[in-house]
Amino acid sequence: MAEHFPGIAKIEYEGPGSKNPLSFKHYNADEVVLGKTMEDHMRFSVCYWHTMQGLGQDMFGVNTMSRSFHIASDPIRAAEQTMEAAFEFFQKLGVKYWCFHDRDISPEAGSLADTNRNLDHIVDLADSLQNDTGIKTLWGTACLFVNPRYMAGAATNPSPEIFAYGAAQIKKAIEVTHRLNGEGYVFWGGREGYDTLLNTDMKQEADQLARMLHMAVDFKKSIGFEGQFYIEPKPQEPTKHQYDYDCQSCHAFLLEYGLENDFQLNIEANHATLSGHTFHHELEYAGARGLLGSVDANRGDYLIGWDTDQFPTDIYDTTMAMLTILKYGGFKAGGLNFDAKLRRQSTDLEDLFHAHIGGMDAFARGLKTAAKIMEDGVLEGKLTERYAGWSGDLGQSIITGRASLEDLEAHALESGEPEKSSGRQEMLENILNEYI
Amino acid sequence: MAEHFPGIAKIEYEGPGSKNPLSFKHYNADEVVLGKTMEDHMRFSVCYWHTMQGLGQDMFGVNTMSRSFHIASDPIRAAEQTMEAAFEFFQKLGVKYWCFHDRDISPEAGSLADTNRNLDHIVDLADSLQNDTGIKTLWGTACLFVNPRYMAGAATNPSPEIFAYGAAQIKKAIEVTHRLNGEGYVFWGGREGYDTLLNTDMKQEADQLARMLHMAVDFKKSIGFEGQFYIEPKPQEPTKHQYDYDCQSCHAFLLEYGLENDFQLNIEANHATLSGHTFHHELEYAGARGLLGSVDANRGDYLIGWDTDQFPTDIYDTTMAMLTILKYGGFKAGGLNFDAKLRRQSTDLEDLFHAHIGGMDAFARGLKTAAKIMEDGVLEGKLTERYAGWSGDLGQSIITGRASLEDLEAHALESGEPEKSSGRQEMLENILNEYI
Amino acid sequence: MAEHFPGIAKIEYEGPGSKNPLSFKHYNADEVVLGKTMEDHMRFSVCYWHTMQGLGQDMFGVNTMSRSFHIASDPIRAAEQTMEAAFEFFQKLGVKYWCFHDRDISPEAGSLADTNRNLDHIVDLADSLQNDTGIKTLWGTACLFVNPRYMAGAATNPSPEIFAYGAAQIKKAIEVTHRLNGEGYVFWGGREGYDTLLNTDMKQEADQLARMLHMAVDFKKSIGFEGQFYIEPKPQEPTKHQYDYDCQSCHAFLLEYGLENDFQLNIEANHATLSGHTFHHELEYAGARGLLGSVDANRGDYLIGWDTDQFPTDIYDTTMAMLTILKYGGFKAGGLNFDAKLRRQSTDLEDLFHAHIGGMDAFARGLKTAAKIMEDGVLEGKLTERYAGWSGDLGQSIITGRASLEDLEAHALESGEPEKSSGRQEMLENILNEYI
Amino acid sequence: MAEHFPGIAKIEYEGPGSKNPLSFKHYNADEVVLGKTMEDHMRFSVCYWHTMQGLGQDMFGVNTMSRSFHIASDPIRAAEQTMEAAFEFFQKLGVKYWCFHDRDISPEAGSLADTNRNLDHIVDLADSLQNDTGIKTLWGTACLFVNPRYMAGAATNPSPEIFAYGAAQIKKAIEVTHRLNGEGYVFWGGREGYDTLLNTDMKQEADQLARMLHMAVDFKKSIGFEGQFYIEPKPQEPTKHQYDYDCQSCHAFLLEYGLENDFQLNIEANHATLSGHTFHHELEYAGARGLLGSVDANRGDYLIGWDTDQFPTDIYDTTMAMLTILKYGGFKAGGLNFDAKLRRQSTDLEDLFHAHIGGMDAFARGLKTAAKIMEDGVLEGKLTERYAGWSGDLGQSIITGRASLEDLEAHALESGEPEKSSGRQEMLENILNEYI
Repeated sequence: MAEHFPGIAKIEYEGPGSKNPLSFKHYNADEVVLGKTMEDHMRFSVCYWHTMQGLGQDMFGVNTMSRSFHIASDPIRAAEQTMEAAFEFFQKLGVKYWCFHDRDISPEAGSLADTNRNLDHIVDLADSLQNDTGIKTLWGTACLFVNPRYMAGAATNPSPEIFAYGAAQIKKAIEVTHRLNGEGYVFWGGREGYDTLLNTDMKQEADQLARMLHMAVDFKKSIGFEGQFYIEPKPQEPTKHQYDYDCQSCHAFLLEYGLENDFQLNIEANHATLSGHTFHHELEYAGARGLLGSVDANRGDYLIGWDTDQFPTDIYDTTMAMLTILKYGGFKAGGLNFDAKLRRQSTDLEDLFHAHIGGMDAFARGLKTAAKIMEDGVLEGKLTERYAGWSGDLGQSIITGRASLEDLEAHALESGEPEKSSGRQEMLENILNEYI
Repeated sequence: MAEHFPGIAKIEYEGPGSKNPLSFKHYNADEVVLGKTMEDHMRFSVCYWHTMQGLGQDMFGVNTMSRSFHIASDPIRAAEQTMEAAFEFFQKLGVKYWCFHDRDISPEAGSLADTNRNLDHIVDLADSLQNDTGIKTLWGTACLFVNPRYMAGAATNPSPEIFAYGAAQIKKAIEVTHRLNGEGYVFWGGREGYDTLLNTDMKQEADQLARMLHMAVDFKKSIGFEGQFYIEPKPQEPTKHQYDYDCQSCHAFLLEYGLENDFQLNIEANHATLSGHTFHHELEYAGARGLLGSVDANRGDYLIGWDTDQFPTDIYDTTMAMLTILKYGGFKAGGLNFDAKLRRQSTDLEDLFHAHIGGMDAFARGLKTAAKIMEDGVLEGKLTERYAGWSGDLGQSIITGRASLEDLEAHALESGEPEKSSGRQEMLENILNEYI
Repeated sequence: MAEHFPGIAKIEYEGPGSKNPLSFKHYNADEVVLGKTMEDHMRFSVCYWHTMQGLGQDMFGVNTMSRSFHIASDPIRAAEQTMEAAFEFFQKLGVKYWCFHDRDISPEAGSLADTNRNLDHIVDLADSLQNDTGIKTLWGTACLFVNPRYMAGAATNPSPEIFAYGAAQIKKAIEVTHRLNGEGYVFWGGREGYDTLLNTDMKQEADQLARMLHMAVDFKKSIGFEGQFYIEPKPQEPTKHQYDYDCQSCHAFLLEYGLENDFQLNIEANHATLSGHTFHHELEYAGARGLLGSVDANRGDYLIGWDTDQFPTDIYDTTMAMLTILKYGGFKAGGLNFDAKLRRQSTDLEDLFHAHIGGMDAFARGLKTAAKIMEDGVLEGKLTERYAGWSGDLGQSIITGRASLEDLEAHALESGEPEKSSGRQEMLENILNEYI
Repeated sequence: MAEHFPGIAKIEYEGPGSKNPLSFKHYNADEVVLGKTMEDHMRFSVCYWHTMQGLGQDMFGVNTMSRSFHIASDPIRAAEQTMEAAFEFFQKLGVKYWCFHDRDISPEAGSLADTNRNLDHIVDLADSLQNDTGIKTLWGTACLFVNPRYMAGAATNPSPEIFAYGAAQIKKAIEVTHRLNGEGYVFWGGREGYDTLLNTDMKQEADQLARMLHMAVDFKKSIGFEGQFYIEPKPQEPTKHQYDYDCQSCHAFLLEYGLENDFQLNIEANHATLSGHTFHHELEYAGARGLLGSVDANRGDYLIGWDTDQFPTDIYDTTMAMLTILKYGGFKAGGLNFDAKLRRQSTDLEDLFHAHIGGMDAFARGLKTAAKIMEDGVLEGKLTERYAGWSGDLGQSIITGRASLEDLEAHALESGEPEKSSGRQEMLENILNEYI
């Protein structure tokens, strides 16, 4: 097997003092934090699409990068070499998980049957590489947005023929994810939305989407696949409006169609900010509803209106994210998948390592900082104190449903002006800064 | 009764040719469109807060306007005169509805009991003016955001004492709305949100909010108030994040807490755009779920990140709004309430008339244009055609739940590449322009 | 010569009553408005890149469209056929101008010399087609953003070697524009900006950019090219920050480097809104400084943070644009170039016609509405009135520089509180609506 | 003199280990960094408007805070007590500078003459407190946005009478700033912009603004005031468009009207982000043109579209800011003025201290981090390397103006495809994180 990342050895933990850019300064896989290794907390995953297949293209320019594993003229041979290179990369980086779309790993052929045969062939190789290395599939998914047939959506397409084609592709993608012992399966509806309401029946399309998901749940059960299903929220891009706008919108959809027990959310930092929320907000919303499934760990640029999918580096963000993830019990089937891509100018092979190392170190610092904050109880303590009244008589009478508006009016008329307390935002921000 | 808008007579319909700025060019109350008078379609309402009490203050400057009905030194006398002026305005403008917050119409006093007494006094006056004029209350509401006691929310306050105070205020506001035969009651949670997650327990606060709304539903039933309850979505401002972010977020909340049959939505155009959606989108989302209750008819500035509450003037917006409102059967209890305010520099009394006339004419054109589009069936026809496949065998097998992923895979393997059709967006936009 | 738009005849003016989607309802080329034909007012131009080469690709999907003129396997043959198809399209649409990048019309070859030879060959063909049809080049430009060599900019590249390569390309592009009797030449600095300040020396890069433009001015003079040079502002995308942010930023740059007499601006509607301004604002800023050169006539989506390049359809926008263009004397060398692309789902050949027809009709309505407003003097009259004080003694003493702060203090102390007048925004908006 | 901040002693430096929230963890005034004390680097200033006069009002609610120094019923007595409280606060916090608007420190009276008399009286008191304490005026300014007379601008008002009134106020404000030995004077044009172009002549207003500034320069020289004049950019709010949009727009204006040698910029972090730029970008742009004068040290919320004026806490921002400030030689007349306000819920007196302490500590960390980065030369070194080509022959021939397009074409034809290098963004971000 050819080496595709020559000259780069396995990335080791060298600690904060190291000046070696190809080492971890903070991520130490076996280090135990709050009773669990960092590796088990984070469950880092590399995404196949950006890391193995992304080459710097943008809307105004063609690829800037080239990779030795893409050069074979036979597409199947290129797919094989890319898969081999991927596992070389995973091992050198030291991650235990990867994620993929069906079409990332294996090319489309002239017919769906041939396409599926290609896919089976590559999945055989992936399976064998998984067995050899102990690296696992965090989740798989179907790419239902690149091919022109899906230009008006897959599940939400005005044509049932295209719906059927998408259904076939989803079925196969679930099967191969199952075959690879994937711990989850993601639905990202990149084209499930609209470009103009003038040609769109939103409710009809929502009904279609729900049907597809119900079928997928039925199929999953029928084949005994126990991986977790996720919906991935995103507000727009490529469509003007994407139906899975944000966590709460997805929650509405799941509740409306009786799917809330079959799906969790795969929350992406950059999608959160594009929808007008912080990453932290989206994690909190989901966490409190048992919907915090997995994370697409990246960041956007707050001054840019499209998905930049940058590698996460901001310690504030990773700290608040890890605080919330820990608060809700940590990952079960999910993990931190780097749905992040190199900047277009980062054309060297080693940039791929810098980028992932930076992301892993940023989350490692976030974890350690969050653990320290939790151990000291500084933020949680203030929160408990602030809501203490709800454990008292009045609070309990309200929250348990005993009190009526009439009761509370009587109470208010008698009690006079209630006391108000400082929200202490600046002090809490200072406390947070003491830990950063 | 003193005249507060001297020199301005009742605004009459003079038709598009008129050059009189104080006349309607398009709104002709008794004109029948699609079998109903324009007045009955639109159910225009004036809001008390901006129109009677707004004086041009902004974050960087004090009031620029002054009104004769505010000058009385006794606050109750001033409140009375303002109420009288309001009905003079409603009559001169020719609207049949108004909306109010409890604290707009009557000032707070030293105690809740005294405040309630003030309110009862003014409501007596309002009731009598309603009887005299035939003008009705579209909806009432409680102001739970101006007073500092609500700085951290009313229903979502960390203190149950403040929750109780808010409950008392809501109870009273529902009572007076009932007394005035209000056709609805709105919950706009201006402070029901957070400024920082560092001091906030979002789920606890959502539980609290749901409790308040359940109590309000119980109370409404207990007193026989049959007005429609509405939640009014807004994404942020004054808080960083407002819980009633947009229509779909509100839908999630209602479903999560079993409130979906007791509430509809009061949709504001400017709140829609602040949440990243078009006004049209929000109306469509709500309409398709039976949640399209009432409308706060205004507009924002797409390049400005706060609520500008401008009077609606864009014919595209009013046309799409009326198309959707007509599509879902028109208003029942709701209407078009001008939650809009004069620009700070529009300091003359007659500017109040220009502003409302402009808004009413813009919606009148929207109605007539929408009616013409519907009569010609041009947009609906294209839509039906686009989704025609869903009435066929394959479509029906999917939508009724008969087909499984396996069935659809078999179908796709056999059918080959499905056909795709142009979405025809530009042609549809041209068609729309033919009607504008 | 093969017909590439079969079944579509020359688009004719049929008037507002026509139901033929492939006709003009408002654009009547020979109709005289304010003493000039519509054709001469508008100087409509088709852009080669989107209209002839754009195939629906976006960041999440490949091409959705295919064109008969692209299928030849020899790239030169395909380029020839595309050029022939272009002139067929221009004629059928009835526009008199086109715009192009060097690389749109002719492919890159293995060396710069060969690339230039290809370009010369295609320019020969374009020249001959221009002669045959009377259609002219509105402006040409060099594509300095697609090729990976320009990933860090052309003029602002950290490498002078790449600067030199870009200079060579600009020289050639000016030459061929001159050869085609182009009336202008545009500099759009798609990669002249930065992705991160961590690797960028902004002032050094501004100096470089100014050098390139000075060289281009020198070259233009040396070859006797009298076409107008334009800078095209855009705030970001593809780079995080683009140096030509908006009209005023470009103005600063031109003044800083002594280039203000050699350049005007090519103002794009969608770039305006991305920079936080209305299209109207940018036109006004430029017009008042003699910088209003040419227009990229399109529109964006205010709720979307990237360049959507939609065809213009909003009559408000086209009316305000034409009002400003007329106010500043109309186009000299510039025109209305449709830098607009089909939506990805608009896959039929006739969609290209719908789109351009819609844009031309929208601007035709804008022209006629603006002309009517000017003839009636309704807006200008109000403006003159509002600033009337500046023609009086006090105003003149200030504006001519006679008055000092001391003089004005003396005046203010003596005059007391100055009068303020209503800004009448709502009334003016109503007046505008009477004309729409 | 009454104590207005009882129970709070002078804030001392206690180092990072301290758990005392009312101590500095990082700001140690006398500590020497890069050869200068932290105090001399930072030149921290407290703003009078937010810190002494801000009480938590927002667009949806009245004041939430109350202060002992506001309660006197006589407005002059209240102004005196507020001034005394201010100096108590400055001393307890340990800052050496303050900033003010004329109307912050002293109330308007019935006539301009009386208003000026009030102002003189309070300025006497401020002068005496400055002498007693050694605390100095960083800059003064005139409030030309609160009073309704300025609703349509001061310098850019359609009425020359209002211009004259504004001129009188500016003259007086410069005089009192001079009297207090202010080191600068700021022009923030809060109302110098427009709400609608329908009633605005932008160029006329720009001419007016330039006249006002020229007069101010003349006046400054006539009285021997040697303080630095600053323009403060802001894109919008309160007006829809503010003329001083961002640094480059201000630069354009200064160049257009020949004012570039008389003004620098006062750059506010939150105004930067509202205009679509990072704080760092604005500092860099200004620094490279000699325009980096002073800083309004605050932060916004990237997901909020209005000026939140939060206290700065993000170490990334303060580090990049201090790196740039150090790069351009540090502050001369300017400093770090906290134009920041308490959150509306931060109602306790000690919250004022938490907020300022947090901001000072955040900048102290920024300074120390920036100093370390500079000492290690890590970022500067990479930058020098990246642009190294510009010191070579080709680079020099271009930048000095020797080379022409023809020369560069000859070079490019001969040299073949130029080399491109990785931009290394991820590696640089990792390096930065090593220092945070």
